[in-house]
Amino acid sequence: MPIDFSIVGFLGFDVFGTVVDWRTGVARASEPFLARHGIEVDPLVFADEWRALYQPSMQKVRAGERPWVKLEVLNRENLETVLSRHDADFGRISDAELVDLNKAWERLDPWPDSLEGLTRLKRHFALGPLSNGHIEGMLNLARFGGLPWDVITEVTKSYKPMPQTYLRSADAVGLRPDQVGMVAAHNDDLKAARAAGLRTVFVRRPHEHGPNQTTDLDAKEGWDVIAESLTEAADALGCN
Amino acid sequence: MPIDFSIVGFLGFDVFGTVVDWRTGVARASEPFLARHGIEVDPLVFADEWRALYQPSMQKVRAGERPWVKLEVLNRENLETVLSRHDADFGRISDAELVDLNKAWERLDPWPDSLEGLTRLKRHFALGPLSNGHIEGMLNLARFGGLPWDVITEVTKSYKPMPQTYLRSADAVGLRPDQVGMVAAHNDDLKAARAAGLRTVFVRRPHEHGPNQTTDLDAKEGWDVIAESLTEAADALGCN
Repeated sequence: MPIDFSIVGFLGFDVFGTVVDWRTGVARASEPFLARHGIEVDPLVFADEWRALYQPSMQKVRAGERPWVKLEVLNRENLETVLSRHDADFGRISDAELVDLNKAWERLDPWPDSLEGLTRLKRHFALGPLSNGHIEGMLNLARFGGLPWDVITEVTKSYKPMPQTYLRSADAVGLRPDQVGMVAAHNDDLKAARAAGLRTVFVRRPHEHGPNQTTDLDAKEGWDVIAESLTEAADALGCN
Repeated sequence: MPIDFSIVGFLGFDVFGTVVDWRTGVARASEPFLARHGIEVDPLVFADEWRALYQPSMQKVRAGERPWVKLEVLNRENLETVLSRHDADFGRISDAELVDLNKAWERLDPWPDSLEGLTRLKRHFALGPLSNGHIEGMLNLARFGGLPWDVITEVTKSYKPMPQTYLRSADAVGLRPDQVGMVAAHNDDLKAARAAGLRTVFVRRPHEHGPNQTTDLDAKEGWDVIAESLTEAADALGCN
């Protein structure tokens, strides 16, 4: 029997990968920059390399090796790391260019089903990012793609999958953990959300990392809802 | 010459009084409660009495006499104070009833022009509350009334008109103070916002406190925009 979502008041979404397609968007933004500076790397590979530093950089925060900083700061550091590996000539790259390229993470297209799915889910649930992104980035991403969030919070000052990220998000919207559903394309995220007491919705995004993706191709546990898209998740949750 | 709003990216709104009509809504929610408990007071007067404790209760936080707490907590304390004055029999009033009545502040109707005004303003600006309300209250109010905010923040942990409330709100959305406009029906709010460097939009709400209102009937300074409604503010800011 499927778990009852009638007591759920809020759905928190993983954003990068679950709601928006970061890989295509970051590659699109990187291409003219790479060409301008003669850095010879496929923009999609560059996006993958940049993204690959995301978890390790957050891990330092999670492990208490450095204080919490906005994701924007980590993205910028990671950008410089990747550029260094490609022997970029930093003497010829302006700070303004790096700031602008870092904003690629705020100009990402929603997956084709995202807007319809969110719009339908919004009829029954309050919706917001439950993301590692900072408020400004989430706001700009929402305006870029038309994401119909009810609320964007960044009260957590912690990164997923630390339990406080989920618990503080629930508290911010005035709900108990079991009144919140976590929607994500990543099994680890859902595992931590479930451990914190949240309901879980898995949305399969088998091309988040491109055609050769090896991770999160399938649900690794019996998540409360398992769907192929946000519209299918809306169907499963009775949001027509 | 009118001030240029082209660099403004975010409009922060006072909510209680400027966007929603708290007096009618609180009276509506209070009426059955008062009747049930035999408390003989006009519900509109009760709403006024409750609201009258709002600023003094926040003042204790501003003055550092107590730590910041969510507005919900102050509202609840003030409710009990007002009920005490009317000799309410707390032995017969359940906590659940008080919790529910306190939620009156989350079930308030927008003024007739608010939804159209916000919808038009949203085409040019990111919108969010710059309110003393807490996230949960703002979220529930938005869903109750259909307020199309882009973002709801509560990063400030301070109350207006303390300058950090405005400055931290600007910072949360990644903008400088002069890239943020404060929209309010209250001169004091705008005065503090201007002192913090924000642009100012005054919306006249001469009936916020009922037919005999004596405060904020007119703009007390040359605010950047002075309007009779949020739709008129949208006109003035070129949002058609």
